[in-house]
Amino acid sequence: MDDNFRIGIIGGKGKMGNLFKILFKKNGYPVEISDVNTALTNTELVKKSKVVLISVPMEIFPEVVKEISPFIENHHWIIDVCSLKREPVKIMRKYLKKGEILATHPLFGPYEKDLRGKTIVFYPVRGRNVSRWFRELMLNEGLNLVKISPKKHDEIMALVQVINHFWLILLAKVIKDSEFSLKELVYLSTPSFLRQLHILKRLAKQDTNLYAKIQLENPLGKKFRNLLCKNCKILAKAFNSEKAEELFREHFNFAKEIAKELEKLLNEVFPDEV
Amino acid sequence: MDDNFRIGIIGGKGKMGNLFKILFKKNGYPVEISDVNTALTNTELVKKSKVVLISVPMEIFPEVVKEISPFIENHHWIIDVCSLKREPVKIMRKYLKKGEILATHPLFGPYEKDLRGKTIVFYPVRGRNVSRWFRELMLNEGLNLVKISPKKHDEIMALVQVINHFWLILLAKVIKDSEFSLKELVYLSTPSFLRQLHILKRLAKQDTNLYAKIQLENPLGKKFRNLLCKNCKILAKAFNSEKAEELFREHFNFAKEIAKELEKLLNEVFPDEV
Repeated sequence: MDDNFRIGIIGGKGKMGNLFKILFKKNGYPVEISDVNTALTNTELVKKSKVVLISVPMEIFPEVVKEISPFIENHHWIIDVCSLKREPVKIMRKYLKKGEILATHPLFGPYEKDLRGKTIVFYPVRGRNVSRWFRELMLNEGLNLVKISPKKHDEIMALVQVINHFWLILLAKVIKDSEFSLKELVYLSTPSFLRQLHILKRLAKQDTNLYAKIQLENPLGKKFRNLLCKNCKILAKAFNSEKAEELFREHFNFAKEIAKELEKLLNEVFPDEV
Repeated sequence: MDDNFRIGIIGGKGKMGNLFKILFKKNGYPVEISDVNTALTNTELVKKSKVVLISVPMEIFPEVVKEISPFIENHHWIIDVCSLKREPVKIMRKYLKKGEILATHPLFGPYEKDLRGKTIVFYPVRGRNVSRWFRELMLNEGLNLVKISPKKHDEIMALVQVINHFWLILLAKVIKDSEFSLKELVYLSTPSFLRQLHILKRLAKQDTNLYAKIQLENPLGKKFRNLLCKNCKILAKAFNSEKAEELFREHFNFAKEIAKELEKLLNEVFPDEV
């Protein structure tokens, strides 16, 4: 390996930064970090590194990019891991005039015990070498790599993340308002609802700041939240109406169609899962 | 075993009836069934049986109870498995003046591969012997038995079943309206959303008639659907407002508290699960 192939992680003390530090080191790369109270500043780190992975909270991402921009040379490879992609890509394009740029979003939190089978989406903003290197490394680690445009990424995350997180917060609120104890609900769960509670449980470890950004800064977030509320009202009205049985049948059978398609797809994509 | 200890299953051709037939037989009991086009009629079956398990669609449950009522003697043990409990218990109390009565609700569908760890709720309506026998048998099979009043049962199912099923139908509708393909969503799932899709997938095997009854006949169904819609609107309004960040933090941190409690509880109750 080239001695000059050094990796610098800005925000290396953070949980996601640290996860990548461990992963890079495991693959034999020299890794250094900058963060609050580290020996190196961000700009010193950039000067020493070939690869610069920026893993910082989204609210300080623009200032970090601006801060390092005068020190980015043609030989640099810059990678970001922001949970949204349109704005960060715009910012990197605007301020980083040299070097190769790869935009990524790891579709998992830093608490996952096993990265195999987890997904990272990516988009090569400038240059091919950084993408090729990153993809190969991640594929070797058993991750799935999916290429997607920043626009499409943010759109799909409005459902996969915004609506999914929104539902979990909503479920917690309905549980509270129901005045049932969690103990009663756990003991009286169906297999389906028990799985729902296991998903809700996962929020315990999640970062409030990150979840706020994902929920509030997605350009389609509002649209999808409103779509959810609108459909909630449509279904409630239908199921409360005199034609409830007929309308239930219609909506349920449609959901069953989706479920059947999913059954097929999930078996194809994740044949080992239950 | 007493030679006269025969079990009759009304609706024994149905999936849930058949599941119990297999379970009883496995434990050495002689089992006979009645259903559409069986050798025995319901009343003939009752005359030959000690235990009568009624496993029929809820819409015909009252007429089946009325039909067999003249043939129920003091020695009979009657068990029902209806998904709601208040109405069926009322009907059994009204028409069955003799014999012991046990109300149950298996909190799982007939498609579960492994019954161990699954839950059956029960309520002894009249007599203790049928409850003692049934509990012991089910505990031996590795099931959890939870005693609960019919009223409390129906209330909790308004959340565990009505709202949970409602959400899955709603999710299917939002997926459709989003115009994303299922393939895109599967490939770009986070671990949390992937689990959500796995829950939705399970609807493929579920019975539309049964799900209609569960959704539409729960006395608290309407109240909970409206509660869900109300809270959906409250959260959407909050996250769309100028104070979105502050309000998100508040709601998310509350959901995290619930998640932490759940983490503890689920570890206690199901220490082996992921």
